[in-house]
Amino acid sequence: MSIGSFGYDEFIEKVVAFHGSVAPGMIAGGFMVDIALESLPPGDFFDVICETSHCLPDAVQLLTPCTIGNGWLKIVSTGRFAVIFYEKYTGRGIRIFIDSTRLELWDEIRTWFFRSTPKHQQNSGLLQKQLKEAGNTIYSIEQVQVKDVYLSNKERVFTAITLCPSCGEAYPENLGVPCPACAGRGPCE
Amino acid sequence: MSIGSFGYDEFIEKVVAFHGSVAPGMIAGGFMVDIALESLPPGDFFDVICETSHCLPDAVQLLTPCTIGNGWLKIVSTGRFAVIFYEKYTGRGIRIFIDSTRLELWDEIRTWFFRSTPKHQQNSGLLQKQLKEAGNTIYSIEQVQVKDVYLSNKERVFTAITLCPSCGEAYPENLGVPCPACAGRGPCE
Repeated sequence: MSIGSFGYDEFIEKVVAFHGSVAPGMIAGGFMVDIALESLPPGDFFDVICETSHCLPDAVQLLTPCTIGNGWLKIVSTGRFAVIFYEKYTGRGIRIFIDSTRLELWDEIRTWFFRSTPKHQQNSGLLQKQLKEAGNTIYSIEQVQVKDVYLSNKERVFTAITLCPSCGEAYPENLGVPCPACAGRGPCE
Repeated sequence: MSIGSFGYDEFIEKVVAFHGSVAPGMIAGGFMVDIALESLPPGDFFDVICETSHCLPDAVQLLTPCTIGNGWLKIVSTGRFAVIFYEKYTGRGIRIFIDSTRLELWDEIRTWFFRSTPKHQQNSGLLQKQLKEAGNTIYSIEQVQVKDVYLSNKERVFTAITLCPSCGEAYPENLGVPCPACAGRGPCE
């Protein structure tokens, strides 16, 4: 059993090193990315969108060249545990998601996925075992068309840099005056 | 010269492996994260916010335990090249940013930072050399108070999961009905 270019146990080691723990979402994410990589034409370039920020983006960053910082991975949060691999200029792609209709055999996966019991009452050993045994059988894949706004040359446009008259820092001038932080939309008080 | 726990050349190798290229923002980001790690009380836990999605989040993910997928790294885009390390319960922290008043000696860094000439006309070898030589001298650090909304237990609240009546997929019920994707806010057509 392999996940991307790693053996299963090797993948789990990589997960611990990068993500900090063997979260169930990382195991599921590993299988989902593996399904995508197996389904795409070899040698093609692609961009990735995760529909949640939980775990899944780290599986993408571990198993593909796409990262948040290089712009090939984006998060568009819908709350669904799904990942999209798409051709960056046309938007044609595939979407892989945990399919709740395929969880009948896997009670602990169902409990985790639907948060039926509090996390500390879940059996994490059994959950990891079931996720491994279920392999790629609990996911579905569909064709999708990604919206234009997420295609290459439609985002990350580099505009001129200006200095904010309020904080004095440099920022892209198309974001308005003052900069978004001084306009109240920054992370700090 | 070291960046986090790596020697400089070793850090550059890690950048290529994870980010795909030695982007100038990754070199700057490495120095910025290194300044933060040197400035924080050893052994403390912290969360991180990047004010841009360009490069900087990958420097954080390479040099700290904080990733997008484990929730310890967030992006709050203001367009400014800045990173914040903060105590996750109180929001007290430090912010490190490229200080445009400190770039007088470094013409190629200035050209890159202010996008004064198109990227393909910039001298990337000279830029990398200047970023290395400048070391930690072109950044400033300030105390900040992060907004409550980014503190622990104020975000990533796990609510009950429900099935969307439109797409049939599982999602957190506090996001409304139908799910955000079926309400038109998803990444696909």
